[in-house]
Amino acid sequence: MTPHIVIIGGGFGGLSAARALRHADVRVTLIDRRNHHVFQPLLYQVATATLSPGDIAAPIRWILRSIKNVRVLLANATRIDVAAKRIEVSDGDSIDYDWLIIATGSKHAYFGHNDWEPNAPGLKTLEDAIAIRRRILLAFERAEREEDTRRQGQLLTFVIVGGGPTGVELAGTLAEIARQTLRDEFRTIDTTRARILLVEAGPTILQTFPENLRNAARASLVRLGIEVREGMAVTGVDSHGVMVGSERVDAGTVLWAAGVAASSVVKTLGVPVDRAGRVIVEPDLSIPGHSEVFVAGDAAAAMNDGKLLPGVAQTAMQGARHAAKNILRRLQGQPTTPFIYRDLGNMAIIGRRAAISDLGWLRLSGVTAWFAWLFLHIFMLIGFRSRVVVLFQWAMAYFTFQRGARLITGDSKTTKF
Amino acid sequence: MTPHIVIIGGGFGGLSAARALRHADVRVTLIDRRNHHVFQPLLYQVATATLSPGDIAAPIRWILRSIKNVRVLLANATRIDVAAKRIEVSDGDSIDYDWLIIATGSKHAYFGHNDWEPNAPGLKTLEDAIAIRRRILLAFERAEREEDTRRQGQLLTFVIVGGGPTGVELAGTLAEIARQTLRDEFRTIDTTRARILLVEAGPTILQTFPENLRNAARASLVRLGIEVREGMAVTGVDSHGVMVGSERVDAGTVLWAAGVAASSVVKTLGVPVDRAGRVIVEPDLSIPGHSEVFVAGDAAAAMNDGKLLPGVAQTAMQGARHAAKNILRRLQGQPTTPFIYRDLGNMAIIGRRAAISDLGWLRLSGVTAWFAWLFLHIFMLIGFRSRVVVLFQWAMAYFTFQRGARLITGDSKTTKF
Repeated sequence: MTPHIVIIGGGFGGLSAARALRHADVRVTLIDRRNHHVFQPLLYQVATATLSPGDIAAPIRWILRSIKNVRVLLANATRIDVAAKRIEVSDGDSIDYDWLIIATGSKHAYFGHNDWEPNAPGLKTLEDAIAIRRRILLAFERAEREEDTRRQGQLLTFVIVGGGPTGVELAGTLAEIARQTLRDEFRTIDTTRARILLVEAGPTILQTFPENLRNAARASLVRLGIEVREGMAVTGVDSHGVMVGSERVDAGTVLWAAGVAASSVVKTLGVPVDRAGRVIVEPDLSIPGHSEVFVAGDAAAAMNDGKLLPGVAQTAMQGARHAAKNILRRLQGQPTTPFIYRDLGNMAIIGRRAAISDLGWLRLSGVTAWFAWLFLHIFMLIGFRSRVVVLFQWAMAYFTFQRGARLITGDSKTTKF
Repeated sequence: MTPHIVIIGGGFGGLSAARALRHADVRVTLIDRRNHHVFQPLLYQVATATLSPGDIAAPIRWILRSIKNVRVLLANATRIDVAAKRIEVSDGDSIDYDWLIIATGSKHAYFGHNDWEPNAPGLKTLEDAIAIRRRILLAFERAEREEDTRRQGQLLTFVIVGGGPTGVELAGTLAEIARQTLRDEFRTIDTTRARILLVEAGPTILQTFPENLRNAARASLVRLGIEVREGMAVTGVDSHGVMVGSERVDAGTVLWAAGVAASSVVKTLGVPVDRAGRVIVEPDLSIPGHSEVFVAGDAAAAMNDGKLLPGVAQTAMQGARHAAKNILRRLQGQPTTPFIYRDLGNMAIIGRRAAISDLGWLRLSGVTAWFAWLFLHIFMLIGFRSRVVVLFQWAMAYFTFQRGARLITGDSKTTKF
């Protein structure tokens, strides 16, 4: 009987695993609770109204259409029964496996303050991005109708919690929207006076970058009029603003880019996880006691030389591919090999013609880094159509300062004006 | 004091009225409960995953950004107090006017069967289009996971109620998706065997078109494998299908394109309305007893030569422009003039290279009508960006049979698989 390999997750990891198995004599089932793969590095551009959801997402079954040994199922894995080699899904069905690759990624985490979530949404899915876009655009709309100037100032204050790449990208784009895109369209408020705070609890923003690049990024942010607060923890979030250290900041919009935790389903494996809920995997990415189950990407706490691997696309892609190859090795009676991560570099974009790129052997900032960022992200997007449309939308945003997707959508019954 | 003209609605009518007032010495406030104008004729392409919401919608304040005497407010008008000349909006605020143009359009109507709505959604807003897209795509996903062949057949049955242009467009596109787009991506089901029914209670589909064009359209639909049922009323809708006359049809997806009613706010005017809730206006489009209040487009039952004007974009645009000009005439002490509608023609698209166009002096079907349709709709879209992106998406859909926006989005908590 042909071995049945199940992959959970259609992100960077899951797709890489499916591709690595394309020529093998195995049956593969990939399950995901969404029908689409999302190109996560550009999610902030949907949240800030530059790109449409359809520009950065593609149906998983379309991406894998030519791989005939893969079947794609829309299903939400709720529990993994490693003893029975069975995955339970949310509608009561179950799926049996011989081998399992878990690439379920991460969700945002509030460090024990889950009550902050409604007032400080995070950015992980297309729905999150649409909800954040809605909040940002509604803040300006409400300010235009507000007659109380104190309340107007509050509506025009945006706090971004977390100074990693996502926080920096959100802050930079938000500043451009307020200072450029919306400038001529309002009659009561002056959008260019919007206040944008980027708050980082650690000693510095963009901690994973070298110091000179961090300094370049910080200078770019300050030039855009963003208040950068480093070494300051957010100690409270409510519907009217945040506490930054001991300072109260009234804000109409608070966005969360501060922390992630592994997706919850891995807890049901019954093996040790770290503080962020990541599975502590063996060097070959299998789990202790069940060598037929592998975990890759953000759901795993994989180590190289005693150092935790970063939660980026490359880790997921390389890891999931390695897990798939380890399964094929075992099927041929060979031992597995340990996963060794190859760091291909690190990038963050701040705004118009400002970015930083750390390729190890080459460190760039400013316009050169910005071009490198554009090129790489266009290249990595899935499908000719997305590449052309995204490139065109970027060109339009660049030359006209306009954004193509400034829509407030959502259930009108729940919209409050 | 400069006269204050309020326009309710940012659709084809409201935008035309605002533009007609651009050089007048008046203050204009346009209010809408959405921040965006939707190009309604292409809404069915969002519902059928060809275009993204952002491709056919643009922020109202962006469209009107250069008209300096217009202020745009996001607000939901709930009641019009004609005695006090005041509009109440949903958050308790109110807006006073000297002159009022109501261009609030229509919503779908279920002829006294409002309980059908959850199982047979209609298509009027972007949210509707996203919800319908979700239903259509989920039907195929569920069928792929279903093991019971009878239930599989039900999931692959689609019923479209209403044979006007929207119903015909939805049926035609749906057939292409099932027969072409999805053909190679599923492993269990054969999407080309999907059953599509178009049901029209009146004697014929596309009633407003001449007979030879109707026949051409019907032939195109049948060629696409659509079952066209004319002269048959839907007498029941539930979560598992519909009753068409006395025949039970089990269907996983039922879409409503059968009837419209004027938006509810016009009821609060306290003047007579027709059966579909439309205000029975004077020949100059003002309302009886309040010559400072005008109604245009789908919210009005306007007559020419004893015949009700059709509920199309042209009626709204010409009517709202006429209402604006009548206000300016009155401000200059002149009498108003009656509104005379100029019929510019009628078009419907059926599918790939199949459409019908009735321009009065010229009647087209087939490829020529299809090109006329493409050209006109690209031309009427707002903004250079939309035109380029939509043209590109159409070209891709045409040459590759692929659709660019096949996303199932929505609150994951309410998703059932």
